[in-house]
Parts: sequence; C-alpha cells; structure tokens
Amino acid sequence: MKKVGVAILGLGVVGGGTYKILTGHRDFYRKSYGVDISVEAVLELRKERALALGIEEGKIATNIEEICSNPEVDIVVEVMGGVEPAKSFALAAISAGKSVVTSNKELVCKFGHELESAAKHNHVGLFYEASCVGGVPIIRALLDNLQGNKVISLMGIINGTTNYILTRMTQDGISYSEALKEAQKLGYAEANPSSDVEGFDATYKLSILSSLCFHTKIPYTDIYREGITQISPCDVQYGKRIGYAIKLLAIGKNTEKGVEVRVHPAFVKLGHPLASVNDSFNAVYLTGDSVGEVMLYGRGAGELPTGSAIVGDVIYCATHSQHRYSPFENTEKAKPSTKFIKNFESAYYIRLSAEDKAGELSKVTSVLSRNGISVAQVVQEQDGIRGEDGKVPLIVVTHETYEDSVRRAVEAINKNGGSTTVATVIRVVS
Amino acid sequence: MKKVGVAILGLGVVGGGTYKILTGHRDFYRKSYGVDISVEAVLELRKERALALGIEEGKIATNIEEICSNPEVDIVVEVMGGVEPAKSFALAAISAGKSVVTSNKELVCKFGHELESAAKHNHVGLFYEASCVGGVPIIRALLDNLQGNKVISLMGIINGTTNYILTRMTQDGISYSEALKEAQKLGYAEANPSSDVEGFDATYKLSILSSLCFHTKIPYTDIYREGITQISPCDVQYGKRIGYAIKLLAIGKNTEKGVEVRVHPAFVKLGHPLASVNDSFNAVYLTGDSVGEVMLYGRGAGELPTGSAIVGDVIYCATHSQHRYSPFENTEKAKPSTKFIKNFESAYYIRLSAEDKAGELSKVTSVLSRNGISVAQVVQEQDGIRGEDGKVPLIVVTHETYEDSVRRAVEAINKNGGSTTVATVIRVVS
Repeated sequence: MKKVGVAILGLGVVGGGTYKILTGHRDFYRKSYGVDISVEAVLELRKERALALGIEEGKIATNIEEICSNPEVDIVVEVMGGVEPAKSFALAAISAGKSVVTSNKELVCKFGHELESAAKHNHVGLFYEASCVGGVPIIRALLDNLQGNKVISLMGIINGTTNYILTRMTQDGISYSEALKEAQKLGYAEANPSSDVEGFDATYKLSILSSLCFHTKIPYTDIYREGITQISPCDVQYGKRIGYAIKLLAIGKNTEKGVEVRVHPAFVKLGHPLASVNDSFNAVYLTGDSVGEVMLYGRGAGELPTGSAIVGDVIYCATHSQHRYSPFENTEKAKPSTKFIKNFESAYYIRLSAEDKAGELSKVTSVLSRNGISVAQVVQEQDGIRGEDGKVPLIVVTHETYEDSVRRAVEAINKNGGSTTVATVIRVVS
Repeated sequence: MKKVGVAILGLGVVGGGTYKILTGHRDFYRKSYGVDISVEAVLELRKERALALGIEEGKIATNIEEICSNPEVDIVVEVMGGVEPAKSFALAAISAGKSVVTSNKELVCKFGHELESAAKHNHVGLFYEASCVGGVPIIRALLDNLQGNKVISLMGIINGTTNYILTRMTQDGISYSEALKEAQKLGYAEANPSSDVEGFDATYKLSILSSLCFHTKIPYTDIYREGITQISPCDVQYGKRIGYAIKLLAIGKNTEKGVEVRVHPAFVKLGHPLASVNDSFNAVYLTGDSVGEVMLYGRGAGELPTGSAIVGDVIYCATHSQHRYSPFENTEKAKPSTKFIKNFESAYYIRLSAEDKAGELSKVTSVLSRNGISVAQVVQEQDGIRGEDGKVPLIVVTHETYEDSVRRAVEAINKNGGSTTVATVIRVVS
C-alpha cells in the first residue's frame, strides 16, 4: 500500500483537529482510498500541546529544517496562521519537494501567487480549501465542479465571528459590544477582534474566492471594506421589522462593466437563502451562467470542520499524481484589463434622525430625487423603537441606485443645516 | 494544445444544454484549462433537434458504432435516460476506450457497478455528477472534499418536481392534483408523473448518494419508499400552523445499529435549513463526523444546471490523466455485513378523525402510551380547518419513537371500533 507522510506545522485549534482526524481515521483511509497516511512530524514549540495529543517525542520537530529534511514527510500542513514565519516555512517545504496544504487565508490571499509559482517550479501540489469558509466545500466546487461556468456573482457570509455577533444582536436585541463580549467568552472572537469585526478576514477570503470565480487575481487591496462595529441595535430591530436580516456580506460581481468586490454589513431580505444563515454558520451563494444559483452552507471555522477541509486536501494530494494550479495566471495584481467598479449599484436603507414636523420628509425626498435616487419604502412608526438620539426615526429604503449618488445625497442632507440628519446608511440585498 | 473530442448521446433537454455550454464556452475553456474541447459527434435520431442546435450534418451519427469507431471522440456523454439502450451504448463506448459522463440516475443506480467494472477494465473514466441533484456539486464534494469524513447522515430534497408541487400546496393552499397539473403545464412534471411523485426518482438518487456516503452499495431496492400522492391540503395547512414545512425527504443514516435509507414525505421544522428550500430547488443536508452539518443547495434539474454538472465532469475528465472510481467495492448488493434498519426512529404527526366528545383524546393517548409512544404536542382547534371528513381534527405530534410502534398504535386505534380513526401519519424531522 502507498504510504504518505504528513507533517503539521502548528498544533493550535486547526492543527490539533487535523491530527485527530488523520490519526483517528487512518484505517478508514487505508481501506477506502488505498493509502496509508500517517503523521510523521509536527512543528510546535509548545511541546506540551503535542504531548497532550499523544504525539511521541521523536516526532516533535523544533525547526522547519527538520521537517524539510525528513524523507518520510510528503505533505506539509501549514496551520500556523499569519504571514511569517508561515510563508518562509511553506516556501522551504515546497523547495524541499513537499506538497503544501494550508488553512492560512492571509498567506494565500497575500502571497498565493508566490507559493503557487514555487509549487509549479518544484512540481508539488498547493492546496488551500481550508483557507476559505472552513468545512464548506467551496474551493473544490469552483475548481472541479462549477468550473464550466462563468461566475456572474458570489455573495457570502464568510466570517463566523461577525455572523455570531449579528445573530445575537438580531435575536436577543443586545448591543454590538455585549454581543462581542459573549462571542469572546465562547471563543468565537479573539481578544483583539479587529481582523474579524473590521472585515479583514472576510476580505482575505473574498480575494481568494473571487480570484477563483473570475479567473484573475483580485487583490484584497482592491476590495471595498467596512466592518460591523458601527451597527446599532436599533437598526437591527428596524430592519427585522421591515423584513431584513443584517449580515456581514462579502460580495463579488463580474459584469460587462467590470469587477465589483466589497465586504460590508448589509440587510438581506428575509426569504433569501442567506438571510437564515445564523450563528457561526457560513454560506456562499453563487450564480453561474449555467448552473444558476447554488448555495454551500456549513461551519466556517472550528477544530474539526476546518480539519475536515485540510484532511480532504491531504487525501486528494495523497491519491492524485497530477498537480493542478489556478485556472488563471496567478499574479500579484489583477490582469491589466480588469476594471474595478467602485461606484457600485445597490438598494439602500437610510435612517434619518428627524424632527417630527411637517415638511421634513419632503425635504429629504427632494434631495434624494435630485440625486437620481428613487424611494421604494418610507417607514415612520410613531410607536416605534427610538434611535440612539431618542427620536422616532424616519427610514427610507431606496430602489437600486449608485453608491456615489447616495454619498452625495447624504452629504447634502447633512449640510442642509436643518434638523434632519442621516444617522445610518446600510446597503440592502434582496 | 490538448484536444478532446466529445460525443453526446441524446439531444433532449440536458443534451441540448450540454451542447450549448460546451460550444459557447469553448474559448473560455481553452484559455482557462488549456484544453480544446469540441463536440465531435451527436447521436440523435430526431435529426431536427441536432439541426436546430446548428450541428452540421456530418456530425450527426445514427448509431452507436459510428460514435465508438470515431477516433476524434474521447468522451461520451450519455444523456438519454432510462436503462436501455443507454446501458448498452455506455458499455460499448467504454469498450471502445472512451470515458463516459452520464446524467442517468436510473442507469447509475441500477447498473453503476457494471459500468464501473467495465470502466476499470478498460482504464477509462466514469463520471456521474449530473445524475444526482442537477447542478448541486454534491458528488464531487463527497469524493474530493468531504472524503475524510465518516458521513453520519444525509437528508435531501432531491426531486424538484415534488418540491414544486408541495411548495404550491403550501403557499397557495391548493390540492395535490391541482398542483400537479400546474407542474405539468410548466414542464416540471411529466405527463406520467409517477417516477417523480411516487418517489422512484428520489430513491435512485438516494441509492447513489448514500452508497458514496456510507462506502457500501445501497441498492435502491433496500430503500423504503413512499410518494406524495396521498398528501392532503389540510395536513399541509395544519403543519404550517404548528411550524412545519412538508417536503419529500430522502434520508440516509449510518449508525452503529446499521444503515437506514428511506424516501417519504416529512414535516420539517421551520428554521431547519431544508424547510426553506422551495419551488424546484433541491438541497442535500449532510452531517459528517468532522465537518458537522453542511448543506448544498441549487437547481436540481434543467437544461443548463444539469448541463453544468455534465460539463464539469467533461472538463475534469479532459484535464485529468488519472481515473478514479468509487471509494468502496462497487457491487450489485450491499456488503454482507451491512444491516438495514427498517424499524427506524422518528417523531410523528398523527391526525385523527375524532368525534368531539369527552374521553376521545384520552383513549388515543392511552393507546399511544401502551405502545411506548410519548406525546410532544396535541392540537385541537375548534375554529380550525376541517379535514376531508368535515370534522375538526385532533392532531398529535409524538416525541421520537419507533416506526413499528406507530404502525401498531395506528392499527389499535383504528380497530378500537370507536368513532376515532387515524386519518394521516406524517413523519417529522426537526
């Protein structure tokens, strides 16, 4: 039977999960896939982590050279996170002729082109299913199932931390900071939560996914990004009343006009499959020119779900002799011909802090109208929940319009000098 | 550039869609995948179909031998449906050294083991993503992404026709036969709808999917099957009121006690991701021991969605030199060690046709209790919708219990000689 040796770099949550799955299922994989996959080495400076997993001392390496020079190691699983030393370690492993499987979205997003170029040069595999949306089989689907489609758009809830926070705010009516604290207590959010709540994590994943969807590198620096820290509980509740769920969405579109990529909070119409993706669940909703709408849903993070994605890549790598790379030229920047659309189209929820007096609504609508924005819905409930300003809010939901038009209109309303000002603007997806 | 020739057997809905995608995207595939995939031949006796698609006369074959002897053909796409002549044609293609891509669930379900054995013998590929759930990337996910998991269970809405009918019954309050007529008018149901509405189609697909999930052949003849023709509009409405959506579910479970496979209508608790899969959409909800819950959602049928799955397989086959087969011994019957559980566990919705007099409920509950069935909920709304019998129904929802216990209890209630009889039993999934 073919023998394949694995080394795991980092025994944190995902590394530990990967180790457990690989060792617990070793016989299952021998029987099902005809290959004996064994963990031959781990690189983990906190030796007690390795010992707690029952790994024998002789397999605990203390530097990357030991891994690279170990002839028993065929596949290196990089689950350390962050750019360095993960990048140097992955490149060293590739140079040593090992295939690399990684869950490191930041590394793949920022330096995937370098890793891939090195992997091609060294005729080894590079796999990163686990870098995006944990256990959800999105990358394999894009590469080997939906690859006959031109992807028109993707919309994803691809960060579990923020989805947990927004779900708590929606279901329990609590504030952002209370929900964040709860998420931290449960281990869903880190002590410094900024990578998640400011949308960086989602931006890295959207960069990877949209590159695969649109067949050109989409650098994360070209992605518009807005986090969830400014979401107020009253907007969450107003949205709920008028039929929306608040989500941090990662959106990519490829139209004739160009590519549009953005991460920001959005109201999603109830009834849309993404609206009911709650708690720490993730989902990617994709439209292809042949397949139409497809949604993949599951756990976006966690020891075993992300471990499942790592192990899926490990088995694939162990049972395939042919290495395959991105279906596009993987470069640092987008193709020169790629045009990024910044002035995108969307519907908008605009909450105004208004004095309850005659003529205020008509002033607002006339500013909107001057900016070419047409109104779909106006809500002003006298018995409604009050905003942070203690006022009963005036809410306007627009039809599809342009981002720039809304920015101009908001500026004009606020400059008006009147008593009506814009409290919140949230994009709406239906 | 590598050239790969395709022949399409049958230019019905899926064959036509496949042709359109392959020809319309030929340049895209050359650029993205470095392979020139061309349709070199079609086998279609209704020549006008081929001409309508713009296929030149010289490429229209009239018998399978022309396809098999055509050296330009590398991959044969079988989209004829039914067992014969599809089976003979696929075997002939395989014998001639062509790889086969098929959307034919009945063929794969009943004779997949024969086709696979022939494919192995002839060192060609056999692909059948399109046989299950149209454009939804479930088979590739099972083979190459979730393959490190032991699948604990799968639940699917895997027949679009019945889901369309049940959605119309739920949303519009119409009867089964009205909804069926509408589905027929829209082309969602065939003139003879029995393969769909009696659950055969779902059974074929469940056989294929559960075999891949549980790593043993699950013959369709071992699957418990019940269709949707007996679903009454009043049950649909009662279910809706107490928080359930009616679905035709395909369920597979692999427990320590054995394998459980069944296709039947079921009430799915609102809030469960499957409950909001409506119209002709399909979804498979799967639980793996590592990945946890995953759901894949999309169009289960149609020209382009199913064409997308076919083309995904064609590109995969055209770009991979290594052929891979089932991750289990693909045989006619299940492994001798496989135990099928017929007396499965479930919760139940039982509607009773009862006289509105004292003591009726207690008679019923005492029969249930004697059979070890515990009651979770009782509903008797005086102003409720009446059953077909004109009576206000008494509805009992049970906790998890055994199928056999419920059958015995129903028999006992009906035999009681009293005025209370069981009108409907529907399994409940939460």
